[in-house]
Amino acid sequence: MTLPDPAPALGLLKPSVRSLAPYTLEAPVTARKLNQNEAPADLPPHLKAEVLARAADVPWHRYPDFAPMELARTIAARHDWDPAGVLVGNGSNEVIQATLAVSVGEGDAVVAPAPTFALYRLLTGVAGGRYVPVPLGPGFGYDVDALIAAAREERARVVVLNSPNNPTGSALPSGAVEQILAGTGALVVCDEAYQEFGGPSAIPLLRQSPRVVVLRTFSKAMGLAGLRFGYALAHPAVAREIAKAKLPYNVNGITLAAAAVVLAHEQEFAARTRAVIAERERFQPRLAALPGLTVFPSAANFVLFRCEGVPAREVFRRLVEEHGILIRDVSGGAGLAECLRVSIGTPEDMDAVLAALQDILGG
Amino acid sequence: MTLPDPAPALGLLKPSVRSLAPYTLEAPVTARKLNQNEAPADLPPHLKAEVLARAADVPWHRYPDFAPMELARTIAARHDWDPAGVLVGNGSNEVIQATLAVSVGEGDAVVAPAPTFALYRLLTGVAGGRYVPVPLGPGFGYDVDALIAAAREERARVVVLNSPNNPTGSALPSGAVEQILAGTGALVVCDEAYQEFGGPSAIPLLRQSPRVVVLRTFSKAMGLAGLRFGYALAHPAVAREIAKAKLPYNVNGITLAAAAVVLAHEQEFAARTRAVIAERERFQPRLAALPGLTVFPSAANFVLFRCEGVPAREVFRRLVEEHGILIRDVSGGAGLAECLRVSIGTPEDMDAVLAALQDILGG
Repeated sequence: MTLPDPAPALGLLKPSVRSLAPYTLEAPVTARKLNQNEAPADLPPHLKAEVLARAADVPWHRYPDFAPMELARTIAARHDWDPAGVLVGNGSNEVIQATLAVSVGEGDAVVAPAPTFALYRLLTGVAGGRYVPVPLGPGFGYDVDALIAAAREERARVVVLNSPNNPTGSALPSGAVEQILAGTGALVVCDEAYQEFGGPSAIPLLRQSPRVVVLRTFSKAMGLAGLRFGYALAHPAVAREIAKAKLPYNVNGITLAAAAVVLAHEQEFAARTRAVIAERERFQPRLAALPGLTVFPSAANFVLFRCEGVPAREVFRRLVEEHGILIRDVSGGAGLAECLRVSIGTPEDMDAVLAALQDILGG
Repeated sequence: MTLPDPAPALGLLKPSVRSLAPYTLEAPVTARKLNQNEAPADLPPHLKAEVLARAADVPWHRYPDFAPMELARTIAARHDWDPAGVLVGNGSNEVIQATLAVSVGEGDAVVAPAPTFALYRLLTGVAGGRYVPVPLGPGFGYDVDALIAAAREERARVVVLNSPNNPTGSALPSGAVEQILAGTGALVVCDEAYQEFGGPSAIPLLRQSPRVVVLRTFSKAMGLAGLRFGYALAHPAVAREIAKAKLPYNVNGITLAAAAVVLAHEQEFAARTRAVIAERERFQPRLAALPGLTVFPSAANFVLFRCEGVPAREVFRRLVEEHGILIRDVSGGAGLAECLRVSIGTPEDMDAVLAALQDILGG
């Protein structure tokens, strides 16, 4: 196909966008998939059947609810918060995007720890903002003083905190968000995608400061990554502004039904979360006992480790090719030289990972 | 619940966002729903069953495809275009948002006809751009020369054209997009949400200029408003940049399955579209024959009319309260004084609308 020269169009796009590297993920298909911090199992069949029955009843030719009020009330009750301060999204990514879109103008600084989830940098760039990464401390622990100092120096509009932090697993120490609120004038966006697995939550702080925005997702502990559901909790006056950057009808009818079903059966998911935590606690010391690895503490449903003997890329490749295990090679990230990240799967998955690593590292 | 004073947070948000009116829709529940230009009927049961069977097989705890390549190939083949130039979205709104996000910086002008779909103004405001509305001509026909003149004068970064245009129904004259491309240096975003119902398509122009972006949705002719699916067609090099502002995994697994099923049965939807067009052609002259109404020509699946005797708000209210018919009161929009918009439903729906209007207008 002959295509026209794209130059006249590319010249119209924002330089801040053109200079960004796109977010991509190319991943081979393997027997054991431990690269995206997903839940180890699909929704229980009786719940899947319940969602599908509701989906069959929903008229697909009609737009979903403009604002799903009943669901917002259920979520608000779950966190003892105001329903007018709940914003649902097509995954929590959409509410992150909307939050940055309403707050970050050209040149505004966004402070975040480094390394962290790559999307914050990308969305800051799209908004024309300045992304200011602040290195985590020794062992990837959060350096709260350094975050505050950077936010003050850069007059940051926003501080983004992912706790537990992806890909390191580090949780914020308790009291840290209070300190950051007190020490800066920034909007503090707390992405708690992994909070069910460990670390403190910033939700109680919503009553103390209007500058707190908390993000949650159903993609991890709730096992709905494929259906895309997340939400923000914020002061109602702030939520009203963030809503302006959120698309109308953004969450489809089937996902709304699935979210409602999951919320009605929260205990089943809490039990699954406890099992993942127990497996992490069983896995981590055994991983640390292998030769040639440094394992970092994790409060999440994944574990980060550094390879010291065999190069990380080689370990990653051999896990895929010789053992059918896909983990995440994060070794290209700043500060992550020779690091790999593995999601916590079933006990069988983790036994297989340990056996494979033993084989590769020749312990 | 006692909440903190929101002022410290509101001061951190962009003034361009705070001054925006949010997009809202409050609508009573009625027997006949003709207010959102949805398809008159749900997906045929055998297709709904096929989608649900596929949905049951998809693992919900896994992220959907990063980029659904097979679906992109099917869509590309449908339009004889390059798969690398197809971007899928959670409704076409998401691809509109991403397109504006990568092109519109602070102060950049976005030219669009007026009146048109409200979301363009809102998303331009969120991006910090200047929205430049250009009035449609007599009878709401497109004024191509005025659009070109405004785009040149304002050095517009983007021109957004909704054809057929919501809420007026006006289609661009053929050759108009070519003229606008030749007369301006702007990115020309052609939102063809209603194109299946009438008017020319800009898709053939993709091969002539890299400055054309065409948006399509499955919410109207394809009857999937509740599932949220749309896409952009653009030069692959431009699509690669727009993709940076699109969230990863933005279309959920069930919607991807539904889109594939719909595309495999396009003929059924084409027949439904022909029926809607036939009903519009039957309805429009009968509506025009009622006393005290001016009916505007429409190439879409809705019709705009102006009330001359009874006030529009009164007509709207009585349709709801006395006849159980919900249409769209657009009379508050600029240039739309006393105007109402009615979607084309089933023949029974439209007979009911005509009988009710006859009663209200006392013809």
